[in-house]
Amino acid sequence: MNWSFWPIVSIIVSLGAFAIGFYFYNHIKKLPSANEEIDRFGDLIREGAMSFLKTENKVLTRFVLATTLIIVLFVPPIWKSTSILGNIAMGLCYIFGAIFSGLAGYVGMRVATIANVKTASAAEKGLTHAYRAGFRGGAVMGLAIVGSCLLGASIVYLVFPHDPNFLLAFSFGASSLALFAKAGGGIFTKTADIAADLTGKVELGIPEDDPRNPAVIADNVGDNVGDVAGMGADLFDSNVAAIAASLVLALDLKQAPFIFMASAMGLLASMVGVFISNVKEDKSPGKALNRGTYFTTALFLLLTLGASLIFQFELRLWGAAMVGLLAGTVIGFSSEIFTSDEGKRVAAVARISQQGPAFTILSGFSYGLLSSFPSLIGIAGAALGAYKLCEPLGQDYAVFGIALSAVGMLSIIGMVTANDAYGPIVDNARGLSEMSGLGDEVLRVTDELDAAGNTAKAITKGFSIGAAGLTVIALLAAYRETLMNILGDDFLKGFDILDPLVFFGMLVGVGVPAVFSAMLMMGVNRNADRMVNEIHRQFDEIPGLKEGQAGVEPDYNRCIDIATVGALKELLPAGIMAIGVTLLVGFIGGVYAIAGYLAGNIMSGVLLALLMSNAGGMWDNAKKYVEAGNCGGKGSPAHKATIIGDTVGDPFKDTAGPSINTQITVVSLVSSLAAGLFAAFSIFG
Amino acid sequence: MNWSFWPIVSIIVSLGAFAIGFYFYNHIKKLPSANEEIDRFGDLIREGAMSFLKTENKVLTRFVLATTLIIVLFVPPIWKSTSILGNIAMGLCYIFGAIFSGLAGYVGMRVATIANVKTASAAEKGLTHAYRAGFRGGAVMGLAIVGSCLLGASIVYLVFPHDPNFLLAFSFGASSLALFAKAGGGIFTKTADIAADLTGKVELGIPEDDPRNPAVIADNVGDNVGDVAGMGADLFDSNVAAIAASLVLALDLKQAPFIFMASAMGLLASMVGVFISNVKEDKSPGKALNRGTYFTTALFLLLTLGASLIFQFELRLWGAAMVGLLAGTVIGFSSEIFTSDEGKRVAAVARISQQGPAFTILSGFSYGLLSSFPSLIGIAGAALGAYKLCEPLGQDYAVFGIALSAVGMLSIIGMVTANDAYGPIVDNARGLSEMSGLGDEVLRVTDELDAAGNTAKAITKGFSIGAAGLTVIALLAAYRETLMNILGDDFLKGFDILDPLVFFGMLVGVGVPAVFSAMLMMGVNRNADRMVNEIHRQFDEIPGLKEGQAGVEPDYNRCIDIATVGALKELLPAGIMAIGVTLLVGFIGGVYAIAGYLAGNIMSGVLLALLMSNAGGMWDNAKKYVEAGNCGGKGSPAHKATIIGDTVGDPFKDTAGPSINTQITVVSLVSSLAAGLFAAFSIFG
Repeated sequence: MNWSFWPIVSIIVSLGAFAIGFYFYNHIKKLPSANEEIDRFGDLIREGAMSFLKTENKVLTRFVLATTLIIVLFVPPIWKSTSILGNIAMGLCYIFGAIFSGLAGYVGMRVATIANVKTASAAEKGLTHAYRAGFRGGAVMGLAIVGSCLLGASIVYLVFPHDPNFLLAFSFGASSLALFAKAGGGIFTKTADIAADLTGKVELGIPEDDPRNPAVIADNVGDNVGDVAGMGADLFDSNVAAIAASLVLALDLKQAPFIFMASAMGLLASMVGVFISNVKEDKSPGKALNRGTYFTTALFLLLTLGASLIFQFELRLWGAAMVGLLAGTVIGFSSEIFTSDEGKRVAAVARISQQGPAFTILSGFSYGLLSSFPSLIGIAGAALGAYKLCEPLGQDYAVFGIALSAVGMLSIIGMVTANDAYGPIVDNARGLSEMSGLGDEVLRVTDELDAAGNTAKAITKGFSIGAAGLTVIALLAAYRETLMNILGDDFLKGFDILDPLVFFGMLVGVGVPAVFSAMLMMGVNRNADRMVNEIHRQFDEIPGLKEGQAGVEPDYNRCIDIATVGALKELLPAGIMAIGVTLLVGFIGGVYAIAGYLAGNIMSGVLLALLMSNAGGMWDNAKKYVEAGNCGGKGSPAHKATIIGDTVGDPFKDTAGPSINTQITVVSLVSSLAAGLFAAFSIFG
Repeated sequence: MNWSFWPIVSIIVSLGAFAIGFYFYNHIKKLPSANEEIDRFGDLIREGAMSFLKTENKVLTRFVLATTLIIVLFVPPIWKSTSILGNIAMGLCYIFGAIFSGLAGYVGMRVATIANVKTASAAEKGLTHAYRAGFRGGAVMGLAIVGSCLLGASIVYLVFPHDPNFLLAFSFGASSLALFAKAGGGIFTKTADIAADLTGKVELGIPEDDPRNPAVIADNVGDNVGDVAGMGADLFDSNVAAIAASLVLALDLKQAPFIFMASAMGLLASMVGVFISNVKEDKSPGKALNRGTYFTTALFLLLTLGASLIFQFELRLWGAAMVGLLAGTVIGFSSEIFTSDEGKRVAAVARISQQGPAFTILSGFSYGLLSSFPSLIGIAGAALGAYKLCEPLGQDYAVFGIALSAVGMLSIIGMVTANDAYGPIVDNARGLSEMSGLGDEVLRVTDELDAAGNTAKAITKGFSIGAAGLTVIALLAAYRETLMNILGDDFLKGFDILDPLVFFGMLVGVGVPAVFSAMLMMGVNRNADRMVNEIHRQFDEIPGLKEGQAGVEPDYNRCIDIATVGALKELLPAGIMAIGVTLLVGFIGGVYAIAGYLAGNIMSGVLLALLMSNAGGMWDNAKKYVEAGNCGGKGSPAHKATIIGDTVGDPFKDTAGPSINTQITVVSLVSSLAAGLFAAFSIFG
């Protein structure tokens, strides 16, 4: 079999995914809108989302160009480089990665901001129609993300088949974008959410999606920015990093085709899966989402097994991929157990909230700590299991097995992303129904769709954190491989945890996700403060706005601007801190310190990400549980306590927690790319 | 110089410390009591504390006997043991460690529960007298703890000079006691604190130390149980573990005398320091505490330098100890910066609390995350610095240097413990003044003493976490040394972080402190619930109690019983979980997995301990800052928000956070002692 066979198949499958995405897009676009009002609000949301992307892209372009310059000059140091063209190509791959990921996000967001209006409108015809509009909107995102990821990776590999560094640079481009999209989007969405709640619900006592509130559009834009574009960029990032890390390890083993085979089959399975996911009237949309995922998983298993048998891949490699897939399922499942609003843990948090908000916080935090354990064991078990499974093939295969478990876990993310992007679309649809007065029956349908979206979101988060964990283990192995290539026989010893440089790096690495997430959360606080001031100004200065006088409208765009500008302003220092500390550790402690640093970073990153995501999810659902009439229902002390919990949980679960993934990937890729520099210039190394 | 010279000097210095402690004890005992009422309440507190110790000791005895049996049977496996007497001696050393630590804690608590009454009474004569009574009470604890630690370690070493395992067993005995004293005491104290606040301040609106509240004595007992006995046991534990770990590494180098020299000089310096710490009327007691610490530190530096020069120790070893001392100061200092009620960070938390309790939590948590970074870098820098300093002497010396930095950091804990135990004594004194009506001037004096105690406590906590961090690095090195002795030449490779077994262990190890602290915090919640029910019962069933009718008294002892029994009931599962997971990892993954497990455990343990201790300290002081009249003062929305923050912070900073230290030491010692078993029986190792 030709080495380029599977990358070419991957390209064909990717193009097929784009075709299905385009078909869904046309299907959704042709659906009717319920009235002019909903189109007007839909336009406002779409324009807001696009205006965020535009401003983000301006800052991002400067960041990417500056980084490209550094890559061209230093990776490898240009005065030592054998080919200046190689350096330039490296820089171009980096730009290419950022553009591919950015385009996929752009397409997904464009479709999501059309699908929200169409879903609300379709809800007039019933659940089946509304679900289809919402889910297909999400599916476009899933197919676009995974298709462009695989397309880009295949092209880079076909052009530079013998040097995986180009794919690492491509991956780093995607990571840079993810940093802006995920962390920036996370700050945006919670800024708007908190400011809208504080001024609307708390101060004025008006409903959540009341059009009088100047932050209401920004709030709906935030759902798209944070949950569609942000989560998509994050999963794109993990997926391409897993492929790149595996390739670094696969080259000497000549097993690169297996990686492309597994990825292509995963996308193919997702392409079939998105057609299966439908719901009948009076059936549960949550089950429909899960049915699609189960089907995709089973199909992926069969397709890869078949391809492995036909094309004579080692079955142990296939097993390693399946171990990863299994771990992903375990992690997603344990996130659901802890955060499901039908679960007994959420009920326990709600019950103890009757004693006051301090107990809401303490119990949710404690459960959050507990919830990290099954996932940590899942990641640990997958890494060990995949290793042991492939060990009979040889030591190098064993390490490659770990990387394959990450690829396996990420193989079905087309479907996972579709489920995830469905969430903000139906959430938006609910808001739009309220704003444009579509009536109670429509609200009931969109509420039902929305509840299913929340559970899907919890599973996706667990999944994406687990995938990031395994991916970074693979990146760590790739980092060692890179070092072996650079240092040759000088590099014989491993990264001993008792080597003081490794230990030094590990302790510093442990601190970085903590500082990173603290900076993001404080950024949300500061930015929400700015927006609250602007809302107060509008209420004071625009006559008739507070009273809801006909024809008087707030200046929605000012709030969107504040959220956008503030998000980027607050995100940059955190991103620069993470990259800066990485470079400092590398130039002080050298390549061994960096290995420890990455290990420490993964450890505390995975722990904090799981803690924050799950605690936040629990608080959110405890509030919903009380609002459903339990523990005193709306207005009761338990309700007030869980609202406080939910507000604490918002930046936990939607800003800091999930952004840590991206932070881990970014510093891992920086480390791999700068490995040569650290090896050449460091104080203690 | 004879090998036994410095251990014998250590014994003499220890006996000297006991003499000074006895002198202080007599001094305090002879002080007059203000009135009969205060003696009566003082007796109630003392009896409550002793009743806790008694019940604790019953459970502890069973635990210690069961563990002794396991040690005698399996360390080493008795069917492989060359001498059954050796196994029995090992078991005895373990018991010996538990008894020594327990006795020191008993003495300290006995004195503290006399000094509280005398301090309150002395406050009638002014600040100078009251400070002296309170501080000398704390000093007895400090001298007893460090004296008995050094005495015990010296005796064990003199009896078994060639096998450091006996000292490890002694250390494990101290750790077992610390687990009960620190975690159990931590649950006790917060159970009583939260239950007293919820029923007294919140429900009935009566003052904090109102004698009508059935939980009021339990609350005051809790201060002694948690902060005197618990913190003392924790520092005893770290100190003896640092000595034991250093000895494991020192034996081949024949540098054991240096360890005893440094420890003896540290105790000597503290013995002088406690005489220096006095305060004039109208001067700050906080500064007096710090003056004593600075003086002790400087004296220790000079004494050890002098001894190193005279007795011709390597000066690089002295340097390594000083690096640790410096790091301890940095960590203590950074804890103070974040938690000081005069600092701008506490003020920032108070200010943002005006927007609601969610922001109190978010900002305190974010600062807590940030505060971990300087300490992590301090520990990392100390380990690296000490290593590099001793590297010219040889590789083994370099690792020994890390252990010495832990010894250096812990050398002045006599003084640190004195400062720390001063806190609950003056806190109790304040409560007793209120209960027995000693008037406003006395309250002013005891308030001033109390404020100084809070800052000292924050510094001690940072110090003890840092010391635990360094100690466990030393224990990890000791673990490797132990393995080398057991496995001989088979054991050539290091603990590579990319070895999948090491990595597996690391991920599991990361989760254990999270689960451990969650279990403790949930235990506090459950236990407080039980006590609240009991308080309600008493208010309902005892006529005239609520109304404060003369001669009617609540059943204080029932509350003390509930706190005691509940604390032990909630603590055991957490302790067994930590030890059980350690054994599971060892028997599944073997000795490599355990090395990773310990590294992961330290990483997340130090991070979580710092986060929880510092966030809790900030919330406490933010409340105090508001109560001092800032941001609206008492009764304002900011006050309500900071009260919620303080309630969340209570189990953070007084139960879970500081108990993590002990958990880390316990699992490290279990690992070292069971290393032989893991090497012989494990599935994957």
